[in-house]
Amino acid sequence: MVQQYEFSLKEYSYGFHLVTEEVLRNIPSLPKEGVLNLFIKHTSAGITINENADSTVLSDFRSFFRDWIPENYPKFEHTYEGTDDMPAHIKASVIGQSLTIPITNGRLNMGTWQGIYLGEFRYSGGRRRFVAIIIS
Amino acid sequence: MVQQYEFSLKEYSYGFHLVTEEVLRNIPSLPKEGVLNLFIKHTSAGITINENADSTVLSDFRSFFRDWIPENYPKFEHTYEGTDDMPAHIKASVIGQSLTIPITNGRLNMGTWQGIYLGEFRYSGGRRRFVAIIIS
Amino acid sequence: MVQQYEFSLKEYSYGFHLVTEEVLRNIPSLPKEGVLNLFIKHTSAGITINENADSTVLSDFRSFFRDWIPENYPKFEHTYEGTDDMPAHIKASVIGQSLTIPITNGRLNMGTWQGIYLGEFRYSGGRRRFVAIIIS
Repeated sequence: MVQQYEFSLKEYSYGFHLVTEEVLRNIPSLPKEGVLNLFIKHTSAGITINENADSTVLSDFRSFFRDWIPENYPKFEHTYEGTDDMPAHIKASVIGQSLTIPITNGRLNMGTWQGIYLGEFRYSGGRRRFVAIIIS
Repeated sequence: MVQQYEFSLKEYSYGFHLVTEEVLRNIPSLPKEGVLNLFIKHTSAGITINENADSTVLSDFRSFFRDWIPENYPKFEHTYEGTDDMPAHIKASVIGQSLTIPITNGRLNMGTWQGIYLGEFRYSGGRRRFVAIIIS
Repeated sequence: MVQQYEFSLKEYSYGFHLVTEEVLRNIPSLPKEGVLNLFIKHTSAGITINENADSTVLSDFRSFFRDWIPENYPKFEHTYEGTDDMPAHIKASVIGQSLTIPITNGRLNMGTWQGIYLGEFRYSGGRRRFVAIIIS
């Protein structure tokens, strides 16, 4: 059985954000056993799983990725959408645009410290759109 | 219901290439609702999703990844298959070797600007082989 | 049909390790056709697919990733769990925490040179826990 839900999250600022609870509020119900495929319909934001406890993990992600792909990278030609755009595209592909998470006993079967991160790589990315597919 | 299709794409040059249409031509039909798992059977090429409109995004991806993992990286020991080989392995794992894309109303439910990229990280990678799994 | 198996692997040292056979020993049986979703329940280790033949590929992965995210990165604030912790979180998200692999004729349908890698990014990560979901 395959169920689909399409929804938007609220707008987030540049950086990484823990969105597990907001994602789950957009999915009416989880089956007892199955799998969740979460997909983000954008090319300048990504989703990943990481630590859900200490907010400095989120800010350290932002610092590291910001330094890693500088906005003034001299070889970038795709600059007319802003200097944050091309770094955002690359970060989105490195972090990824889909997640596959097991569902067990009616809950996401993640580790104790795991949560869903949104990586917002534009300065004004707006509300991002998602598709959740549940297979059970 | 799970359907499988195995196929090769044509040979691509070193760099990133938009392959959405060529992938779809190798999948006989999409269900009304479901999910596509696309898998590349190689360790020196990868697949990701990114912008389908401006070709400078593709060339900027190539420039950035080429600089990021230099072919003459002094600590690399795995060099007997060519200096492009070890950087290709790492890039393949960073970009990823599978995609999960929702299918809605008989079409891939990607965002307006999303397309499937092949990252060809060898200079002569040959034709790459894929498995598409459709769950509906 | 969706089947689930949860298990731990033995403890691995810091670096990359080929774990295909050990993963398969923890999954009672594969269907004739389907797909395997493998998920790691941690935020400081990751899983990816890469070359299964030459062990220098594994050690070159370790060297490159160790240099790429230095433990003494000056902007990191999340340091109280050890200097290896924050680099481990970022590497885990870059490598990824789930894999989707086709199953054909009762076997994982990977390429000849593909194997499942565990990226252990802590110095003492302990035994890592996984969920395997098989859809057929």
